[in-house]
Amino acid sequence: MHKRLVLNIISRILLIVCFSMLIPLGWAVYDDSQSLEVEAFIITIFIGVALAGIFRLIFRAKKEEFDTLNTKDGLAIVGLSWICMSAFGALPFFLSGAVFSYTDAFFETASGFTTTGASIMTNIEALPRGILFWRSLTHWLGGMGIIVLFLALLPALGQTGFQMYKAEAPGLTAERIQPRVKETAKILWTVYFLLSFSETILLMFGGMPLFDALCHTFGTMATGGFSTKSTSIGYYNNYLQWVVILFMFFAGANFMLHYQALRGNIKAFFKSEEFRCYFFLLLGMIMVFSVVLKVENASSSPLREGAFQVVSILTTTGYSTANSDLWPHVLRFSLIILMFIGGCGGSTGGGMKIIRFFSAVKIAFRSVVQTLFPNAVLPIRFNGVPLSSKLIMSVLSYFVIYMILFFFGTIILTITEGCDLVTAFSAAIASLSNIGPGLAKVGATQNYAWVSIPGKWTLVFLMIAGRLELYSILILFVPATWKK
Amino acid sequence: MHKRLVLNIISRILLIVCFSMLIPLGWAVYDDSQSLEVEAFIITIFIGVALAGIFRLIFRAKKEEFDTLNTKDGLAIVGLSWICMSAFGALPFFLSGAVFSYTDAFFETASGFTTTGASIMTNIEALPRGILFWRSLTHWLGGMGIIVLFLALLPALGQTGFQMYKAEAPGLTAERIQPRVKETAKILWTVYFLLSFSETILLMFGGMPLFDALCHTFGTMATGGFSTKSTSIGYYNNYLQWVVILFMFFAGANFMLHYQALRGNIKAFFKSEEFRCYFFLLLGMIMVFSVVLKVENASSSPLREGAFQVVSILTTTGYSTANSDLWPHVLRFSLIILMFIGGCGGSTGGGMKIIRFFSAVKIAFRSVVQTLFPNAVLPIRFNGVPLSSKLIMSVLSYFVIYMILFFFGTIILTITEGCDLVTAFSAAIASLSNIGPGLAKVGATQNYAWVSIPGKWTLVFLMIAGRLELYSILILFVPATWKK
Repeated sequence: MHKRLVLNIISRILLIVCFSMLIPLGWAVYDDSQSLEVEAFIITIFIGVALAGIFRLIFRAKKEEFDTLNTKDGLAIVGLSWICMSAFGALPFFLSGAVFSYTDAFFETASGFTTTGASIMTNIEALPRGILFWRSLTHWLGGMGIIVLFLALLPALGQTGFQMYKAEAPGLTAERIQPRVKETAKILWTVYFLLSFSETILLMFGGMPLFDALCHTFGTMATGGFSTKSTSIGYYNNYLQWVVILFMFFAGANFMLHYQALRGNIKAFFKSEEFRCYFFLLLGMIMVFSVVLKVENASSSPLREGAFQVVSILTTTGYSTANSDLWPHVLRFSLIILMFIGGCGGSTGGGMKIIRFFSAVKIAFRSVVQTLFPNAVLPIRFNGVPLSSKLIMSVLSYFVIYMILFFFGTIILTITEGCDLVTAFSAAIASLSNIGPGLAKVGATQNYAWVSIPGKWTLVFLMIAGRLELYSILILFVPATWKK
Repeated sequence: MHKRLVLNIISRILLIVCFSMLIPLGWAVYDDSQSLEVEAFIITIFIGVALAGIFRLIFRAKKEEFDTLNTKDGLAIVGLSWICMSAFGALPFFLSGAVFSYTDAFFETASGFTTTGASIMTNIEALPRGILFWRSLTHWLGGMGIIVLFLALLPALGQTGFQMYKAEAPGLTAERIQPRVKETAKILWTVYFLLSFSETILLMFGGMPLFDALCHTFGTMATGGFSTKSTSIGYYNNYLQWVVILFMFFAGANFMLHYQALRGNIKAFFKSEEFRCYFFLLLGMIMVFSVVLKVENASSSPLREGAFQVVSILTTTGYSTANSDLWPHVLRFSLIILMFIGGCGGSTGGGMKIIRFFSAVKIAFRSVVQTLFPNAVLPIRFNGVPLSSKLIMSVLSYFVIYMILFFFGTIILTITEGCDLVTAFSAAIASLSNIGPGLAKVGATQNYAWVSIPGKWTLVFLMIAGRLELYSILILFVPATWKK
């Protein structure tokens, strides 16, 4: 690893986080310029700028040196940046006294950046708005990705830039609309911004105040899940709930398709096999949920509540309008399965991603047929393109590592918390897939405040590993990463 | 599929099941020659012989015709035989009135043949000994495999014989000690017989009556789990419990290694990487279980009860000496993970098998390192041999299908039973991995009598699919299997 160059880039990324704190700072000053959170933001920004300056002095680098960065460096930059971002972004929570322990502050920030939305806050309405705004803003920054934002804003990094882009942008294959990563990153952030702007307008149109509208837009478009209300979206009227459903649905789809749609190619959506899987899976599950809720008399408005929960969980947002933990067991377990699947590649959603899951299912089916014809060559297509054996291997390995991390997380939680198995496994998958709420003691109306300190760090590890699609974090445990 | 030849062979396999019923018939006659079960066995044998005779007349085949059987036929023979065997073996239970529904009889028989050991019997001590003997004998026949027995007894079938052997013998690669499958099959059954004989002697030496000793030997050596006592092995003294632990351990290891050990090559055990994984995994888990049980004060003899449960679950036997469902959650979930792993390839144990599980872990680890060096060729070795890319693909596909079936089984059970998630997922994995007892409502001291009829058929499907390592059953759902 080229440590000097890596640290140089990380210091630049921290600066972006620093700058982004100016918005919540502004809000805090507007509300009460004498408050603790104003102080907390100013101190944090000061620390950030000072640190970045010192790093830039110690780890000097010329522009052409960045061309020597390799794959390993690119991955390490992403993995380490996300840890540093969470560590640094936690300061306002901690310094303002909004939370009492640094572990809690780190948990809330990592949960924000990774768009998990698992919270340790117990009395959300009592928090100052500056803090709440920062909390929701971490979602928005982490959703499309700070690295991607960095690549859009700063000088091109060539091959390493693509490596970093690949490591942060979710999906099986990193698509580039433009040959240059910088252009692709710019387009993605522009689409993201436009969709977010539209949602904010629509929410305000339904009577939501600007502050709430912005925070919930961040939570929706990033598939995050932090709300400014302890009853989440259940607090708002039906119109607003449907708006959130619609934009969660958008956020869980590939942003490349949104870009094409904005350019007039609406058909692109249904030409994409992944989008079709996503769409019909949602449709099917919404039907199942509404019918079961209706038949079992478990909800007063089965269609709206069912649709909300299905879309919220499959897109890995984690907002709720009903206590789904009280629903029939078949729906509870269906939600768990949806948690594993997650949103589309190239979306802001988490989970394994639709493309990986359905590819894995196709590969599994093919292997059954292959048994019958051991010597036949049976290609597997997705989106019309045959999957290379390298890609097949990557899909299957990903599946296996995902399961291993899921089991690992569950067993650690049974040790640290001594909690029941449903709480443990749902907390593990809700963190790994960046959803937030799970079942039982971490269900829709509960939170993570009660989890022990080792338990919280375990969940933080799962969240970041899940958001970065495992590899950028796992390579940090391989000694070879740290060698020259 | 060559339907005529396939049915011809299946009728021969049914005949073996028929003949094996003579032993429980003998026991039934010895106890009470006027009893209902004597009648039941005689009727069943009569039906079997008649059916086999009719089949042989309708589906005539000359010896040389069997050479035209292909891979597809071999797989179909195994899959269909197991279904027919369970359907036919269920008759004595049903006709003797030991159970009231044919579903229950089929469930108990499939559970026996697949060495699952999940029972719908609620009052075991009240059952006549002929029935109990048949119940345990199904374990013993299914453990090493009736197809393997068939191959050992009857004329060589050439390549199809090997295909059938591969489909029934568990493990990643079907090993042959002898170039001819017939010889290998004979050796396996001889080793199996010798080990069974030794266990029976050791059990009788500890004061167990011949009948109980035989039944428990069948249950142990086949990693089955049916007992003649409702308190399972907990009924017997410590010496007998340790004997059962030792032989469960043997049954979970590769029988090829036992063969080599019997020929004087004891070192073969520790030369095998799979055996080392198996041994040290058991040792480690026994330590963990005894320490946790001791610290949490959850058992009066932590070492014996911990060791028994760990060995019983990893080998997929399912005997118990304590109600492990009351143990701390971390141990309960550890048992679930062990259920996925299972015994060694070439053993009578179920689960994914040690060799597949540890290969999958190695492949997953390698894929992390591969990310760092995208162009490097990093071979994966198991037992010192590099795994071919075909074998890697087969391991990973197996893992994915296993998980899909697990989730499928769980969701069906939440629908049919409306039961809690812990019961549903533990019943699914306990059936798929051929263990028997799970957690909660199917825990160590519970049984499956309460499960609905659709739920029982779901579990039967999982048991047979798990025992035959998925493919022989799954291909039956592929239309191509049924074409000429």
